[in-house]
Amino acid sequence: MFHHHRELAYTVRVDKPNPVFGRMLQQAIGGPEGEMRVMNQYLFQAWGARGDSKYRDMLLHTGTEEIGHIEVLATAVAMNLDGMPSEKIDDVVTNPLVAARMGGVEPRHFLSGGLAAMPSDANGVPFNAACIDVGGNMTANMRANVAAEAIGRTLAARLRELTDDPGMKDMLSFLIARDTMHQQQWLAAIEELGTSNMAAPEDVLDEGEYQQYAYMFFGHADAPMDPSARWLSGPSLDGKGEFSFADPAPRLGQEPELAQAPSSVHAGLDATRTNGGGDESLVGKVKDAITGN
Amino acid sequence: MFHHHRELAYTVRVDKPNPVFGRMLQQAIGGPEGEMRVMNQYLFQAWGARGDSKYRDMLLHTGTEEIGHIEVLATAVAMNLDGMPSEKIDDVVTNPLVAARMGGVEPRHFLSGGLAAMPSDANGVPFNAACIDVGGNMTANMRANVAAEAIGRTLAARLRELTDDPGMKDMLSFLIARDTMHQQQWLAAIEELGTSNMAAPEDVLDEGEYQQYAYMFFGHADAPMDPSARWLSGPSLDGKGEFSFADPAPRLGQEPELAQAPSSVHAGLDATRTNGGGDESLVGKVKDAITGN
Amino acid sequence: MFHHHRELAYTVRVDKPNPVFGRMLQQAIGGPEGEMRVMNQYLFQAWGARGDSKYRDMLLHTGTEEIGHIEVLATAVAMNLDGMPSEKIDDVVTNPLVAARMGGVEPRHFLSGGLAAMPSDANGVPFNAACIDVGGNMTANMRANVAAEAIGRTLAARLRELTDDPGMKDMLSFLIARDTMHQQQWLAAIEELGTSNMAAPEDVLDEGEYQQYAYMFFGHADAPMDPSARWLSGPSLDGKGEFSFADPAPRLGQEPELAQAPSSVHAGLDATRTNGGGDESLVGKVKDAITGN
Amino acid sequence: MFHHHRELAYTVRVDKPNPVFGRMLQQAIGGPEGEMRVMNQYLFQAWGARGDSKYRDMLLHTGTEEIGHIEVLATAVAMNLDGMPSEKIDDVVTNPLVAARMGGVEPRHFLSGGLAAMPSDANGVPFNAACIDVGGNMTANMRANVAAEAIGRTLAARLRELTDDPGMKDMLSFLIARDTMHQQQWLAAIEELGTSNMAAPEDVLDEGEYQQYAYMFFGHADAPMDPSARWLSGPSLDGKGEFSFADPAPRLGQEPELAQAPSSVHAGLDATRTNGGGDESLVGKVKDAITGN
Amino acid sequence: MFHHHRELAYTVRVDKPNPVFGRMLQQAIGGPEGEMRVMNQYLFQAWGARGDSKYRDMLLHTGTEEIGHIEVLATAVAMNLDGMPSEKIDDVVTNPLVAARMGGVEPRHFLSGGLAAMPSDANGVPFNAACIDVGGNMTANMRANVAAEAIGRTLAARLRELTDDPGMKDMLSFLIARDTMHQQQWLAAIEELGTSNMAAPEDVLDEGEYQQYAYMFFGHADAPMDPSARWLSGPSLDGKGEFSFADPAPRLGQEPELAQAPSSVHAGLDATRTNGGGDESLVGKVKDAITGN
Amino acid sequence: MFHHHRELAYTVRVDKPNPVFGRMLQQAIGGPEGEMRVMNQYLFQAWGARGDSKYRDMLLHTGTEEIGHIEVLATAVAMNLDGMPSEKIDDVVTNPLVAARMGGVEPRHFLSGGLAAMPSDANGVPFNAACIDVGGNMTANMRANVAAEAIGRTLAARLRELTDDPGMKDMLSFLIARDTMHQQQWLAAIEELGTSNMAAPEDVLDEGEYQQYAYMFFGHADAPMDPSARWLSGPSLDGKGEFSFADPAPRLGQEPELAQAPSSVHAGLDATRTNGGGDESLVGKVKDAITGN
Repeated sequence: MFHHHRELAYTVRVDKPNPVFGRMLQQAIGGPEGEMRVMNQYLFQAWGARGDSKYRDMLLHTGTEEIGHIEVLATAVAMNLDGMPSEKIDDVVTNPLVAARMGGVEPRHFLSGGLAAMPSDANGVPFNAACIDVGGNMTANMRANVAAEAIGRTLAARLRELTDDPGMKDMLSFLIARDTMHQQQWLAAIEELGTSNMAAPEDVLDEGEYQQYAYMFFGHADAPMDPSARWLSGPSLDGKGEFSFADPAPRLGQEPELAQAPSSVHAGLDATRTNGGGDESLVGKVKDAITGN
Repeated sequence: MFHHHRELAYTVRVDKPNPVFGRMLQQAIGGPEGEMRVMNQYLFQAWGARGDSKYRDMLLHTGTEEIGHIEVLATAVAMNLDGMPSEKIDDVVTNPLVAARMGGVEPRHFLSGGLAAMPSDANGVPFNAACIDVGGNMTANMRANVAAEAIGRTLAARLRELTDDPGMKDMLSFLIARDTMHQQQWLAAIEELGTSNMAAPEDVLDEGEYQQYAYMFFGHADAPMDPSARWLSGPSLDGKGEFSFADPAPRLGQEPELAQAPSSVHAGLDATRTNGGGDESLVGKVKDAITGN
Repeated sequence: MFHHHRELAYTVRVDKPNPVFGRMLQQAIGGPEGEMRVMNQYLFQAWGARGDSKYRDMLLHTGTEEIGHIEVLATAVAMNLDGMPSEKIDDVVTNPLVAARMGGVEPRHFLSGGLAAMPSDANGVPFNAACIDVGGNMTANMRANVAAEAIGRTLAARLRELTDDPGMKDMLSFLIARDTMHQQQWLAAIEELGTSNMAAPEDVLDEGEYQQYAYMFFGHADAPMDPSARWLSGPSLDGKGEFSFADPAPRLGQEPELAQAPSSVHAGLDATRTNGGGDESLVGKVKDAITGN
Repeated sequence: MFHHHRELAYTVRVDKPNPVFGRMLQQAIGGPEGEMRVMNQYLFQAWGARGDSKYRDMLLHTGTEEIGHIEVLATAVAMNLDGMPSEKIDDVVTNPLVAARMGGVEPRHFLSGGLAAMPSDANGVPFNAACIDVGGNMTANMRANVAAEAIGRTLAARLRELTDDPGMKDMLSFLIARDTMHQQQWLAAIEELGTSNMAAPEDVLDEGEYQQYAYMFFGHADAPMDPSARWLSGPSLDGKGEFSFADPAPRLGQEPELAQAPSSVHAGLDATRTNGGGDESLVGKVKDAITGN
Repeated sequence: MFHHHRELAYTVRVDKPNPVFGRMLQQAIGGPEGEMRVMNQYLFQAWGARGDSKYRDMLLHTGTEEIGHIEVLATAVAMNLDGMPSEKIDDVVTNPLVAARMGGVEPRHFLSGGLAAMPSDANGVPFNAACIDVGGNMTANMRANVAAEAIGRTLAARLRELTDDPGMKDMLSFLIARDTMHQQQWLAAIEELGTSNMAAPEDVLDEGEYQQYAYMFFGHADAPMDPSARWLSGPSLDGKGEFSFADPAPRLGQEPELAQAPSSVHAGLDATRTNGGGDESLVGKVKDAITGN
Repeated sequence: MFHHHRELAYTVRVDKPNPVFGRMLQQAIGGPEGEMRVMNQYLFQAWGARGDSKYRDMLLHTGTEEIGHIEVLATAVAMNLDGMPSEKIDDVVTNPLVAARMGGVEPRHFLSGGLAAMPSDANGVPFNAACIDVGGNMTANMRANVAAEAIGRTLAARLRELTDDPGMKDMLSFLIARDTMHQQQWLAAIEELGTSNMAAPEDVLDEGEYQQYAYMFFGHADAPMDPSARWLSGPSLDGKGEFSFADPAPRLGQEPELAQAPSSVHAGLDATRTNGGGDESLVGKVKDAITGN
C-alpha cells in the first residue's frame, strides 16, 4: 500500500508563468515518453514479479518515485497556467510569437480542467496504456525500462531547451538526473542478471537449422552496406555465433494460396467454393454449436 | 520505395488448422509486442535519421524485413481459419476444452474479416500507434529497439509453447531466430556508438548540484534492500559516478499552494479569488484576444 | 425509432464567424464532457432499463434531446468556419493574437471535413466511447448523469466566457439552462428513488466485520486533517454508520509472495521454478487442450 | 511525494486459483469502472485544486488509497493465474463449463504479461484516460467522484456474485466497504460545500429569458409520461424554480442554411460557390499566411 | 432536432435467448462496420453539407433511421441477455460447445452494463470515432457511405448465418434489406451527381506532366499480372485517359539525405551538426520566442 | 516478402522549409484519410484474399506502393522541420500569422521525434487501426478502397491549396495523380467483377416479405423531399426493384419491454425481480459454472 507526503519530490518554482510551456510539460505526464507510462510499467512489472524479491523491491521503490514525479509535473503545469500573484503571465500570453511557434494554449487546460494538468500529452491526447510494456521476462522488462528512461531523459532534455525560467530549468535538471540514475540502475540490474548481451528470453536457444538465421543480417534493400559495420561480421554479442550478411535476404517461403471461402462467409462469387451438402467449415461448426446441433 | 516478392519470407505450413491458435497469433501482428509496432518503429526512425547513413540503412533493411513478417503471420492466421482441403480443423473446433481455456474464436475473424487476419491483437483491440517509440536520439532509439525485440521474442516463445503443430513450431522457431539477430544487431549498434552504459542522450551531462541525484537510489518503500545489490554501491555503469542509497528518499520539495482561480473558471466558490475590476488572468487575456480587445 | 424535425432545437446565430471559437465548441461535441457522451449515455441506459418505465422514458426523452444539441453545436461550428455572406471572419483570422493564445484553427476542420464539424474534441481527438457510463444500477446511472451534466454545464459556462458574439452567447445560455434542468431532473429521480444518500447499489449491505471499514476515513498522507470535516465524524449520510478517522490507515494485508513461474512462461532464470516432469501449470493445461491431449 | 509499504492494503487469499475469475478482476483494474480511473481522477483533481486545502487533502488521501487497491487487485489476478503451491487450479481449467460461459483465459495474461495482471479491462482493452473526469469545478468533481464510486461498487458487487472463493469474497467485501465510505465522503463534501441540490457550477445563474428553460422538462417522445413524476411538477431541487412540462418540446431554432464552400475546399460542384477574384474565405487567408502573402 | 417514437423500427423477437449471440450482435452496434458509425457518418456529413439541400435531407433522413437501428440492436442484445419469462436461455448457457467456439459471454455485459448492450464491438472494444468518414466532398462522402453499407450488409449477412432463431433471422433480414436500399440510394445519388466513374474530387484535374501518372498501374511486385485485367489497358473509367502498365514502377525520386540536427535536439553525437554561434534552427527560434528574445 | 529501394517513389524537394506545413502533411500519413490506412487496408485485404489471384496481386502491388508514399511524406515532413542548409525556414517561423492560423508547430515533432515525422495525424493523434476496412467481401473491399482513395485525394488536394512551395506542389500533384489511378483501378475491378450497381454481398438476396424494404426510402424527417430525386422513384440501380417512398417511415416494431433483472445484477430495487429459490438467470448459471456447481 502507499502513503503520501505533503512535500513534493522536488521544489517547483515558476518565475514567469507560461501556459504554452505548461502545455509542453504535459508530454512528460501523459505521453508515451512520460511518467504515467513508467510509473505503471514499473508497478505492474513489480506486482507480477515471481523471482528474487530484490528486483521486485527495486521496481516498487522506483515506481513509487515516479508517482511523485507526475505530482511534480502536474503542479508545474498548474503553476504555469495561472500567475495571479505575480502577474508575470502577462507578457507571455500577449506575445504572439510564443504560441505562433509552439501551438498556443491547450484548450482543455481551461475548458476541461479549469487550469489544471490533465492525464494527457502535449496535444491533449489522453494517456493510453497500450504503451506500457509488461513483458513478464525479467531481462525484457529491464530493457524496456532502460528504453523508457532513455526516451524520457531525451524528452526532459528537450523540454529544458525550451525554457529560460530558472525554476523550470532547475526542476528539469533534477528530473534529468533521476532519469540518469534510473537508466543506470536498470542497466545494473541487467549486469547482475548476467544477460547484458543475451537475446531475451535467455532460456530460449536457437538450435539446429535455426541457428543460421540467428546471427545473419538479411539485406532487404539495394543500398550497399558498409561491410565494417559491427553487425555484419565478427562474433555476435552473446558469443554464441558469428555475424554474417545475406544480401539479398533469401526467399525462404512459398507463394501463399488460400483455400476458397465457404459460402457462409459471403466473400464474393469467385472467392467462394462450391461445397456440396452441409457446411463443414469453421463457420458451419460454429453455427451448429450456437443453434444446438 | 518498396517492392514485393511473391514468396513469403518463410514457409507457412499449418498441419492442423486451429482458429484458436490463429487468434493467439494476432498478438504477434497487432499487439504492442508485435510486428506492426517494430515495422513502423524502425521505418519511422529511419525516415527521421539525420546521422551516419549506416544506421539509417540498417533500420530500413530490418523495417522492410518486418513487413514480411506481418505477411507471414497474417497468412498463418488465414490458414488456421479455414482448413477446407484437409478437414483437419474438425476435431479442434469440436473440442470444447481448447477454447474454454484460451477464449475461443475471435468473433471479428469471421464477422469482420471473413476468415482473414485483422490489424488487431489477440483480443481484437485494433493496433494503436501510441506504442511506437520514435525518440529521435540514436541511443534511445536503439534501446527501444532492443526492448521491442526482447518482448517480441518472449511473445514468440510463448506462442510456440502453445502449439504442437510442426508447421507452426517451425515458423515460430524461424521468427525467434530473427528476433535473436535483431536484438544482437541493435546491441551491436549501441556498442559501435560507444554508448552501451551511458545515460541517453549522451550529450546531456549531470553537473554541479544535480550530480548527487544522478547516481543515488532513492528508497521509497519500507522494505529493506539487500545492500549488495549492484545498483546500491560501487561505480555506476557509465563510470561517471558512484552508486549510493538514500533511504528514505529526501523530501526536496515544498508543499504546493496554488493560487485561487479567476472567476471565469467557475472552479467553485471557495476556489475562486475575489478580483476587482478586469480579469487579468490567462482566461481574461484569451477572451480579450478572441473578442478583439 | 426516431424522427427528425428540420428546425434546430435552438436558433444558431453567428454574428462574427470565428474558426478558433469553432474549434473550442468541438469540446462540447466530442469531448468526454460533451453531447456525444450524454446522448449515448442516456440512450444506452434507456435501452437496458429493466425497471419502472418512467425512468426509461425520461432517459429516452432527454437522450433524444441531446442528439439535437449535437446538431445545434455542429451547425454552430460550421457557421464559424465560413463567413462568406458577411465577410466578418476577416478580422478574426488576420489577428494573430487570437490563435496565438488558443491554438489556431483545427487543421482537420479544413483538411478532413472541408469546413464541417467533426466527431472529435477541441484537440481533434476522436470521440471514444470509453467515457460513456452504462452501469446498469439505476442510482449509479442517475449519479453518472448528474456528474456528466455538472461537468458539461461547467464546460458550457467556460465556453461562454470566451466569446462576446451575441449569437454564441445566446446559444450557450440556452444550453446552460438545459444543463440546469438535466441536473435537476436526475437529482429529482434520485430523490424519487429514495437513494439520495445511499451507497449504490443500495441492496448491497456492509455487514459484520466489514461495517467497520464502511464509514472510516483512512489517512494515507501525513497532512493533518481538519477534524471538523464532515467526513471525519458525525453520522454518515446514509444514517447507517458513524464517520471515524483511522490515521494512519491500518495495514491490513500481507507482503505478497508469488509462486515462481513455470518454465513455459520464460520469465527469466530466477523467476522460473524447477518442476519435475510434466507442466502442471495453467500454461501446461492450455497447451494440452490446444494440442488435444 | 509517495511512499510504499510492503504490506498490502488488505489480505489477498486465493483458495482455489481461477484464471477466468482473474480475467474478470481486470475490469476493476483497468476498466472505466475501475481503480486506475479513480486513482488518477482523485490525484489529478487534487493537483489542480485551488480552494480550501481540506478538499485537496481528502482527494490526496483517497487517491493514494486507490493506488493500493490496484496493487491488491493486481496481486489477486497474479495469484489466480498460477496456483503452483496448491495445484488447486487444476479442476477449474479442466472444466469447460467455466470458460465456456465467461470467455476463457485472457490471452495476454500469458502471451504478454507472463501470468501478470495487465493495465487493461476484462476484455484486454488497455486503460484509456478518456474516462477520467477532471472538471475543475469542486461540485462537478465531487459528483463525478460519487458516480465513479457508485459504478465501481456495483462492479465489485457483481464480481462477488461470481465467486464462492472465501478469499476473493473477503477481499471484495472489503473493497465494497471502502466504496461505501468513498461514496459517503464525497456526498459529505458536497453537503459541506452546500451544493447538494444546486446545478454546478453554482456561480452560473440562469436568468432572464433563459430561466424558463432551466426547469422545464422537454418532451421528445410520444410516450405519455406519468404526470406525478417528481421532475414534471413541484419546486425544483435547488429551490429556484418550478418544474414544468413542455410536450412536445418547442422548436426554437431555424432550419440551418450553410453558405456554399469556397472552391479551395473541393466540396463538390453544387456545394461550391462562384467567387470572383481572390479567395476571401478562411482557407484563402490561411494560404496567404502560410505562403507569406 | 429529433423526436422519439415508442415503437421500435422493427419488431424484435428472441425465441431462445442466447448471450453468445448477443455478444456477436455488438459488432453491428459499436464496430467499425456497425450502426454507430453510419449514424454519425450520415449526420455529421449532413450538418456540414453546403450544397443542394436534397443531399442534406437524404443524409438526415437516413442518419435518423440508423439511430433507430442501434435501438433495435441494443434491444435485441438485452433480450438475449436475460430470458426470464421463458427460461429458454437455459440450454444455451449449459452447452459448452456454443461459447467454446465463439468466445463466451462478453464479461462487461454483466460486469459493466448489468445485462445491457454496450457502446462497444463484439470484443468489448469501445466505439472509436476514428472510423467515421466525414470527407467534405459530396462524391467522396457518398462513396464512403456505399462502402460502409456494403461492409455493414456483409456483417449482417454473417450474423444471420450464425443463428436459427426465427426472431433474430427476421430482424436481420429486415436490416439486410435496409442496407440494400441504403447502398442503392447512395449509388443513386452518385449517379445523379454524375460522378460515378470520376476521381473525386471531380474539380481537381490531373494535367500536364502529372497526367501520365494518373492512369498507369505501377508494378511493385514480381508477380506477373494477367495482361487482360481491366485496369491494365483500355480506356480509364472516367474516359479521360488510357490505362497502361509500368512494370516495374519507375524510381522517380532521390535518395533522401536529411540535414544533421541542431544540438538542441540531442539526436546523438553523429547526427548532430557543429553549428557555430547561435542556434538558427527551428528549435532555436522556438526557444527564443518562448523566452521572449 | 518485401524489398526496399533507396530511391524515393517520387522526388521530395522543399524550397522553403515550413514546419507548420510539415504538421499539415501528417494528416496524410497517420490520419484516417492517410497512407497508413490504405497501406494496411490493401495489404490485409490481400493477405486474406481467397479468390482469383489477380485481385490479390493488384492489392499487393498497390499496398506496396503505399508504403513508399508514407516514406515520401515522412521525408517531406522531416525536410520541412529543419532547413539548415538553406536557412529558408527563418522567415516562416518568425511570421506569427502562419501558425496563428493553422495551429503552430506540432510539439511532438520536436519533443518526441526530434524533428522526425510521427505515425500520427495533424493533431498528433496516433494512428488507430480502427479506421482500416477489412471486410472480406471482394465488392465491399473494393468499395472501401474507392472511398479511401476519394477521401485521400480530397485531402491531398486541400494540402496543395495550402502551399506555394514548388517542391511541395509537385509532390502533391504526383500523389493526387496516383490517387486518380487508384480510384480508377478499384472502380475497374468492380466493373470486372460485374457488381457495380449491386448491393454487396451480391450473393445475399432480399426475398419474400423483405423485398419491400429493399428499395423503399423511409422518410424520417418532416422536410418534404424533392420527388424527382433519383432514389425516390424509377428502377433501382441493381435492376431488381423499383424505388419508392414511405413517408413517414412505417413503425414496424413493438414498444420494448425488458424483463426485470435478477437480484445478482444489483440493478436497483424496482428493476429487480422477485425470484423464489435459486437464481435461474444467466448470472446464476455463470456463477454455478465458475464455482463448480
